[in-house]
Amino acid sequence: MAEHLSQSELDYPFKLLEYFNGFRVSKVIFSACELGVFDLLTTSPCALSAQQVAQALHASVDGTERLLDALVGIEILHVETQAEDGTALYSSTEVASMYLAKGGAKSLHDMAIYQSQIIYPLWNNMVDAVREGKNQNQKLFGIPPEEVFRAVYRSDEEMLKFMGLMNSSWVLDGYDVVMAFSLAGFRNIVDLGGCTGALAREIAKAYPSSSVTVFDMPAVVEMATKRFLRADDTFTFQSGDFFHGELPVADLYVLARILHDWSEDKCVTLLKRICDVCEPGGGVLLVEATLLESRRGPVQAQLFSLSMLVQTEGRERPPSQYARVLRQSGFRDVQACRTGKTYDAILALK
Amino acid sequence: MAEHLSQSELDYPFKLLEYFNGFRVSKVIFSACELGVFDLLTTSPCALSAQQVAQALHASVDGTERLLDALVGIEILHVETQAEDGTALYSSTEVASMYLAKGGAKSLHDMAIYQSQIIYPLWNNMVDAVREGKNQNQKLFGIPPEEVFRAVYRSDEEMLKFMGLMNSSWVLDGYDVVMAFSLAGFRNIVDLGGCTGALAREIAKAYPSSSVTVFDMPAVVEMATKRFLRADDTFTFQSGDFFHGELPVADLYVLARILHDWSEDKCVTLLKRICDVCEPGGGVLLVEATLLESRRGPVQAQLFSLSMLVQTEGRERPPSQYARVLRQSGFRDVQACRTGKTYDAILALK
Repeated sequence: MAEHLSQSELDYPFKLLEYFNGFRVSKVIFSACELGVFDLLTTSPCALSAQQVAQALHASVDGTERLLDALVGIEILHVETQAEDGTALYSSTEVASMYLAKGGAKSLHDMAIYQSQIIYPLWNNMVDAVREGKNQNQKLFGIPPEEVFRAVYRSDEEMLKFMGLMNSSWVLDGYDVVMAFSLAGFRNIVDLGGCTGALAREIAKAYPSSSVTVFDMPAVVEMATKRFLRADDTFTFQSGDFFHGELPVADLYVLARILHDWSEDKCVTLLKRICDVCEPGGGVLLVEATLLESRRGPVQAQLFSLSMLVQTEGRERPPSQYARVLRQSGFRDVQACRTGKTYDAILALK
Repeated sequence: MAEHLSQSELDYPFKLLEYFNGFRVSKVIFSACELGVFDLLTTSPCALSAQQVAQALHASVDGTERLLDALVGIEILHVETQAEDGTALYSSTEVASMYLAKGGAKSLHDMAIYQSQIIYPLWNNMVDAVREGKNQNQKLFGIPPEEVFRAVYRSDEEMLKFMGLMNSSWVLDGYDVVMAFSLAGFRNIVDLGGCTGALAREIAKAYPSSSVTVFDMPAVVEMATKRFLRADDTFTFQSGDFFHGELPVADLYVLARILHDWSEDKCVTLLKRICDVCEPGGGVLLVEATLLESRRGPVQAQLFSLSMLVQTEGRERPPSQYARVLRQSGFRDVQACRTGKTYDAILALK
């Protein structure tokens, strides 16, 4: 494949220039999310002119028009030209309405906001992160690199944004990862670091006879209960600290995007703590964007691994590396299931 | 095309997630440029391990390895695994050596640096730029929005970076835009705002019997002479201010990526000043990334137009808009030539 890219690119580097423009495309979509473009167009009964959009969003007509046109260019919006006076009228596509407007069942709106406001500026420190081999929290926030979640949760507003990101991740991949293995045999399932409960909701739906608990830090549980819990949710919350406090007894522990935040040593520490309290015959389900064993892909996981470098003390790993830390911590019968989407599942038994 | 994107994306938004990752892909390439990855691998006689690259670049092994793997994932680098001990050995692709290493004839290295260090952080202000419909120089640098180049040239270091960007733009498109029309009939050609002389060099090569002058601000001319002029260059430099000072008499004025910095009013002011001094039978050659008349593409020009919003007081325009300001300023016989690459050419006669 590298040859293929090379051959066509040597005449003129169209693909490379597209990569150079990548940050602009991301920011076009993110900015439109922040301004409420998709919310407006999704709920509007008719297509709107740039002027109408600008007025509704309290934005400049000129800037709005440029943004709308770029969204048309990347096929996120539709445009039609009014026959009478040539006015361009913009409307939402199904993709934009489903994924970019707020509040829909598959909305990635909060993910876009977090990427725009937090991850995009963090990546501006990538050169230093690669040089130093560690996150940039000390320089940026005055918080030691190993206190990862003191940085992530450095204010209520930041906590809420991060929880929005976590929440919107599982609207896409939640079903696939909870169905990757049959979990019906596990009666008590605890989602450690389960945050808003978005994945717990998927588990509870898929395995209605199991009891599902979200275990997270007190402040997170409080925010989750207040802002994310739904009236028909059947899972419960429990507060604690999985590194230092007592862990609830259960027969399945879910760790979804937890181990990728931590060094291998801390992963083993955490998994051993879990193994100690896990019921006999119980196990652990890891949910991560796993690298190929060769580490040559998937690109998504490779990019996430760099995000982990700049923001945490962990990394993305191939399944064999998870298997190793699981075995070191007392688990056996490790099975990995690649979903073909962003997140994969790994099941191990005590 | 919008339907096409929608249909495949409604099941799972692979393309949309790729757009979300766009900023990460840009920063992977840019960071590798900043760290010197491509310079090292292009000049190395053999493939190198992550450890060797890290050592040479004074960077962490872990961070370097993640970066190298991501570059393999997007096909910018090659990797092979050593049979004996499984060590991954990285080498440059032809694309990386040609475009991303420093100093080659087609190097985009300085473009990558400018995009990484200046444009990427500027785009973090896109929401405000769209809301206000103007650049963010006041807030960011305390410089009024209309003093565009006081902001761009706010220090010698910034000036040098910007000149690097300008310089590397013409290594790709310079030949195409100077050949878009035969300029052989013009004896005295002045490149107004010609910066480092990179486009003047292409003009002088293509039309060796014409005399070619770069006209730019004194500080720019000084830096260009010191840092960018080559021993075999046949064009000359002249200092001045094209908005306020005297313009050199010539029969062709080149304005390459100049009008896109300015409001329509200022474009007309500048073009009228040019028309006043232009020899009879002379003309003006505009070089810009032109929008389609429908404004629905090209995506590159749409994205540039948003860059102009956040950094200048101009915008990208379709050829008809350039034709209008040219006619308003006293020019006639406007012809536009779309090159199919990033920059297009428009010729008008006095």
